[in-house]
Amino acid sequence: MSARNVFYAQSGGVTAVINASACGVIETARQHPEFGTVYAGRNGIIGALREELIDTSTQSDATIAMLRHTPAGAFGSCRYKLKSVAQNRAEYERLLAVFKAHDIGYFFYNGGGDSQDTANKVAQFSQQMHFPITCIGIPKTVDNDLPITDTCPGFGSVAKYVAVSIREAGLDVASMCESSTKVFVMEVMGRHAGWIAGAAGLAAEQEGDAPHLIVFPEIAFDKTAFLAKVQESVVKYGYCAIVVSEGAHYADGTFLAEAGSKDAFGHTQLGGVAPFLAALIKQELGYKYHWAVSDYLQRAARHIASKTDVEQAYAMGKAAVEFARAGKNAVMPTIVRDGVHPYRWSVGEAKLSDVANVEKKMPRDFISADGFGITAKAREYFAPLILGEDYPPYANGLPCYARLQHTLAPKKLPLWNQ
Amino acid sequence: MSARNVFYAQSGGVTAVINASACGVIETARQHPEFGTVYAGRNGIIGALREELIDTSTQSDATIAMLRHTPAGAFGSCRYKLKSVAQNRAEYERLLAVFKAHDIGYFFYNGGGDSQDTANKVAQFSQQMHFPITCIGIPKTVDNDLPITDTCPGFGSVAKYVAVSIREAGLDVASMCESSTKVFVMEVMGRHAGWIAGAAGLAAEQEGDAPHLIVFPEIAFDKTAFLAKVQESVVKYGYCAIVVSEGAHYADGTFLAEAGSKDAFGHTQLGGVAPFLAALIKQELGYKYHWAVSDYLQRAARHIASKTDVEQAYAMGKAAVEFARAGKNAVMPTIVRDGVHPYRWSVGEAKLSDVANVEKKMPRDFISADGFGITAKAREYFAPLILGEDYPPYANGLPCYARLQHTLAPKKLPLWNQ
Repeated sequence: MSARNVFYAQSGGVTAVINASACGVIETARQHPEFGTVYAGRNGIIGALREELIDTSTQSDATIAMLRHTPAGAFGSCRYKLKSVAQNRAEYERLLAVFKAHDIGYFFYNGGGDSQDTANKVAQFSQQMHFPITCIGIPKTVDNDLPITDTCPGFGSVAKYVAVSIREAGLDVASMCESSTKVFVMEVMGRHAGWIAGAAGLAAEQEGDAPHLIVFPEIAFDKTAFLAKVQESVVKYGYCAIVVSEGAHYADGTFLAEAGSKDAFGHTQLGGVAPFLAALIKQELGYKYHWAVSDYLQRAARHIASKTDVEQAYAMGKAAVEFARAGKNAVMPTIVRDGVHPYRWSVGEAKLSDVANVEKKMPRDFISADGFGITAKAREYFAPLILGEDYPPYANGLPCYARLQHTLAPKKLPLWNQ
Repeated sequence: MSARNVFYAQSGGVTAVINASACGVIETARQHPEFGTVYAGRNGIIGALREELIDTSTQSDATIAMLRHTPAGAFGSCRYKLKSVAQNRAEYERLLAVFKAHDIGYFFYNGGGDSQDTANKVAQFSQQMHFPITCIGIPKTVDNDLPITDTCPGFGSVAKYVAVSIREAGLDVASMCESSTKVFVMEVMGRHAGWIAGAAGLAAEQEGDAPHLIVFPEIAFDKTAFLAKVQESVVKYGYCAIVVSEGAHYADGTFLAEAGSKDAFGHTQLGGVAPFLAALIKQELGYKYHWAVSDYLQRAARHIASKTDVEQAYAMGKAAVEFARAGKNAVMPTIVRDGVHPYRWSVGEAKLSDVANVEKKMPRDFISADGFGITAKAREYFAPLILGEDYPPYANGLPCYARLQHTLAPKKLPLWNQ
């Protein structure tokens, strides 16, 4: 069997560990002669359509090894979802043309549910067109919403970041509350599900610990109950540290973040549920507040990544290549939880058709009865995902992250016009 | 000479390393018989007025050692500035009564310029009242605005946090910019001076690195120049990562953060210059944006503290006690920069009267000619302050920070009514 080339692409919002998956793919492929050159899509799948293929073979083993500790997407990612074949056949034909032109036999697509769907469609279409491509998905999403897999690489590191951050900020507020700030609100990602907000709850290990309140997108916001809980915390502990999901909303579905806050130009302000809640508390209870919105900082925070997450991200990339070697197709490696005390995990396998477009919701029984905290069951699920530290190397006081030159393979096809 | 007791208090906004100074004070005092019990003010100087003295002798050496890696104020801090003796003599008399009642011979005040002023006044007043207290200041402020000392403990760790954060978030935006977010704005602390914003500039080591733009409070905001620079960055690098000081303002002194943004209740929103700038860019240039406000996260981030900063914070606490042993009074230890390549520093000394109420501004020649970046001179100043990592221990994936029980000394005086 002669070697065929590999196309790897990163998709959607990037994470602190998606490059660890890339590292797993490239390092593993380099070990086996059936894989030729590993190309990476410049800016994800857009790079395939534009025939912008980054030739990773120009990178030394040492540089590739650095990907393991480099956050964000080293090859560029994109928000670009391929439509169905029926809706946009031209795109699939173009993909296949590029793959043919560069003798691509393997397509590894590193992303969330949409990406797994695309990988599945490419697998089917390439079969139909008699140029079969082995398509393997690699799970990635800070949202932790892929089905079947126990967790998604990227999530554990955000979980660790938010738990560490609210612990630290909580201590700060506790120090100041006697004469100054009494309420602190930290906004975290998670538009549709409260996985990230819930994980922040790990910081509270003893009575009175921050966070004292979590506002989930799974629970319709109840202003009265919320304010009562804030007041209770301030009375009891002297302060209140709150974690709120960006997706927090009212019973009618309106996001809190859109509930009337206007920017300087009179536009309804998107984002910013933390300042909204802080202002609400000030208005109704009169407490002095501070708020924080971590935004990209939380998902890019490789400096405080979870070792477990890094290892799983790498393992998913490695497994994808091993699956391809074993002749598998249209599948995605998964993380299987084999034990809790102590935590053990292994690599499993899911069909892309079972993964695509299925969103895993956080179970209701992860959220406490009052709707503002996490249960023991949630804690048991989240706890192992943040275990271990995996610090990047530093120089001059700053983390050393890989800087990849994007050396493109020479183009062989006409420009893609679309 | 019989032992006399110590009163130590934390003042103003807390930092990632103020407890390292506390650790330096307590560990050093424990080594020398002339110091009796070290009491810490519960919630800073308020604890002295209320006669709420935390008896640190009830804490084991191991617990005190943990203070070195615990952020925020373990004994509580406060925002409470003593007025002048003429304006409020009763407060000074109360302080002295509490000090007498508990045989306090040494007062160590860990704070910024206001606190050094207070320590100086207490030194003078106690002399006048024939109950001399040795008063030593210990520098602390993330704002880096104390004079004489080369830097202030607390600043180096915030500097490291913001530089690491903008490097990581910058990589994230670079990954996404082809099809999504093109502009990222990170707001940092520094209402009056751009020290923190400037330090974030350390992240940019090569052409094109984030941050591409820094908005300083030292430079009146020029909308046209700013927008031109943002556009230039997006055209040249594909994206633009911006650091803005919370104190950024127009030529007339109006803070950008107050420039018309309204909360959901119609109140002018305080804070939030990042969302303001992001909205401005969207309005004028149409770029998709994200923004972050780290707020307390930046100054509480002990998990990514600067080793240099931790060592200096500890050294300042230790030196304060050694100054007291040496019979000094109304002074503050300082950090003296002895060399740049390699960085060397030692402990110096300043009179409290020279420190009190003098604000050190960031020199204009730290800011590039166009007003949106830092100069080589600034880089040389900032660079050593973020050197080294000093990770706290972890358990269950989270940093182990000290939890001090506040065991109060029995009260001996009537309640303080004010």
